[in-house]
Amino acid sequence: MLSISNRGKQMPSSPIRKLVPFSDAAKSKGTKVYHLNIGQPDIATPVQAMEAVRKNTLRVLEYSHSAGNESYRKKLVQYYGKQNIHVNTDQIVVTTGASEAILFAFMACLDPTDEVIIPEPFYACYEGYAVESGVKVIPVTSHIDTGFALPPIEAFEKAITPNTKAILICNPNNPTGYLYGKEEMESLKRLIVKHNLYLFSDEAYSEFCYDGDHYSAMHLTNVDDNIVLIDTISKRYSACGARIGALITKNTAILSTVMKFAQARLSPPGFGQILGEAAIDLPENYFEETKAEYKLRRDTIVKRLNAIPGVYCPNPGGAFYVIAKLPIDDSDKFCQWLLEDFSFNDQTVMLAPGTGFYSSFGLGIKEVRLAYVLNTADINKAMDCLEKALDTYPGKMYS
Amino acid sequence: MLSISNRGKQMPSSPIRKLVPFSDAAKSKGTKVYHLNIGQPDIATPVQAMEAVRKNTLRVLEYSHSAGNESYRKKLVQYYGKQNIHVNTDQIVVTTGASEAILFAFMACLDPTDEVIIPEPFYACYEGYAVESGVKVIPVTSHIDTGFALPPIEAFEKAITPNTKAILICNPNNPTGYLYGKEEMESLKRLIVKHNLYLFSDEAYSEFCYDGDHYSAMHLTNVDDNIVLIDTISKRYSACGARIGALITKNTAILSTVMKFAQARLSPPGFGQILGEAAIDLPENYFEETKAEYKLRRDTIVKRLNAIPGVYCPNPGGAFYVIAKLPIDDSDKFCQWLLEDFSFNDQTVMLAPGTGFYSSFGLGIKEVRLAYVLNTADINKAMDCLEKALDTYPGKMYS
Repeated sequence: MLSISNRGKQMPSSPIRKLVPFSDAAKSKGTKVYHLNIGQPDIATPVQAMEAVRKNTLRVLEYSHSAGNESYRKKLVQYYGKQNIHVNTDQIVVTTGASEAILFAFMACLDPTDEVIIPEPFYACYEGYAVESGVKVIPVTSHIDTGFALPPIEAFEKAITPNTKAILICNPNNPTGYLYGKEEMESLKRLIVKHNLYLFSDEAYSEFCYDGDHYSAMHLTNVDDNIVLIDTISKRYSACGARIGALITKNTAILSTVMKFAQARLSPPGFGQILGEAAIDLPENYFEETKAEYKLRRDTIVKRLNAIPGVYCPNPGGAFYVIAKLPIDDSDKFCQWLLEDFSFNDQTVMLAPGTGFYSSFGLGIKEVRLAYVLNTADINKAMDCLEKALDTYPGKMYS
Repeated sequence: MLSISNRGKQMPSSPIRKLVPFSDAAKSKGTKVYHLNIGQPDIATPVQAMEAVRKNTLRVLEYSHSAGNESYRKKLVQYYGKQNIHVNTDQIVVTTGASEAILFAFMACLDPTDEVIIPEPFYACYEGYAVESGVKVIPVTSHIDTGFALPPIEAFEKAITPNTKAILICNPNNPTGYLYGKEEMESLKRLIVKHNLYLFSDEAYSEFCYDGDHYSAMHLTNVDDNIVLIDTISKRYSACGARIGALITKNTAILSTVMKFAQARLSPPGFGQILGEAAIDLPENYFEETKAEYKLRRDTIVKRLNAIPGVYCPNPGGAFYVIAKLPIDDSDKFCQWLLEDFSFNDQTVMLAPGTGFYSSFGLGIKEVRLAYVLNTADINKAMDCLEKALDTYPGKMYS
């Protein structure tokens, strides 16, 4: 019998995309669906960056250097320098999205059966990269009551085994929006030094911090060899389709190993690199405007959520996600019901069930993730729908 | 001790790129280097396809569907239909280059310790994808005396073990240029049916066949579930930097599994898909002209090589590579010597050592791969260099 692989069977389905058929069905009935379920911003990709692609004069669209065009890496050195992250072009490997950067980090640093600790709830795709590389994810639970702050270091200590090789964080966090502060980062530093671990830090949302500065893993001192920074232009410049990320480290053994993986896939996308390079020359106020817009949306959605009876939503410091606790029996059922059985003025809202972000079975059952990627008018209409929905949902349950 | 993974240590370095420092040194001495070492064509990317990217009116560069834009997959259905390959949009997953398509095929169909048989010499990166997925490559040797024809089926039979799950071919072949004919494909079909194996067929060069028609693995009948077609626009439209490939199969279990891997990495590059979609509307004579140019180059390089005393080069039917046997002691030494110690009228030639394309140790030691990606004037000058070089190389050796 021809069979697919066990790895293929273990590979998780996207928890965010599994509701898509229900959303399509709702739309075909004429219902307007507000998409708060995915991190696809409606913000325009900066015109100046798009123009660089439009005005390209390439005769042959060649492979680039496997680490990315040197001209782009030079610009990235400038960009990171302004964030007080001091690296050179040889310490940056341009990747096909952050996805590839995380996969490269797993592949280069961890072997099958090695363990990586990740605070949960976490970005669902991490589990996929772990299955691809045979690596085992060990969750350490963060809680809505503390706004999803870093779990106490004792919880990490408990989770560490002889197979533990790395900790992976996302800061500011997807899906919680939580922004780890300097104290939390320093406590992680003590932990990785004590146990000789890598710290993989996914900083995709680093430009979107609303109530404090971003403290990068690369700001930690004297742990250069432990740190791998994962980055992407997808959210920063609303350029998800460019598929351009980066893996940055000062650890030369990791760099030379990652380069072997990078060479095997030849090069990152050419046009996306042109866009990324041009984006670095955007005027300083680009992020101010974008951040102001996202902050307004966050304030709007958090306020609206907490005004609904039985709903609790912490006020997170970054990214463009919140997790809210709802007075419901089961977030998977509720999110499907919103699309299948509910509408208000021919409108409804699509949310991501909390369960998809937890590795520990049974957690997130009363939680949903909302991405504030729509303008405030639409967010308000989506919240009107949610408010009405929670009023009539048959599985309502105050815990 | 922080250590890199065993997988990372096992990952092969690119045999093609390891000579780059010597080439850089030669150039800095003022020597002109003819690059016959890599498959980066000098053919212009079709203007019509580039214009589609330049004229894009996107406001937000969004994620595409994880399987690729539906509009692009519809065009691909038309394209493959003209090749007598009849598939629908759900049977095509657009990938980030053929590299990703092969990795997805390995990951979805094979588990660590499963074996894939590949006729050698083979494209060096295959070994890398095997290390990434933990899969074991079992080579079956093809020989220069038969022009690198498919090895006899008995050789495959001998290599098959209970762990064998798939055969991977490249047709027409990189690095040999050999074009498998209908008879060879039908004998492979009998083999995969008898032993219940997958056939992964990398057809990156299918448009470049000079002495016969291309016989795709998808032309084989009644083995739909066994076949996975790997494709790319990199060479077809001289668009290596677009990073757009495809995985095509009628096996629904593979498709749904591959889609999980595709969703984890979100989407293939956006601009590259625009380019690929526009390229399908190129006039019919596009490939005629390109093929005529490559055929002229092949004829030139094969004639020049065979005119050098002690050199033998078969006349391959497709792709844009030849493997030649040279009267030398060691192809790695010779290729380095060409860059380090030789020049003729301040010019030299860069070749890929044959050893990098064999998995069996010791094979390819007298062979080099030449990519005829330069125009005939440059090819002739490169051959002038090679002729002179073989005249003076201290490690000359007639076998």
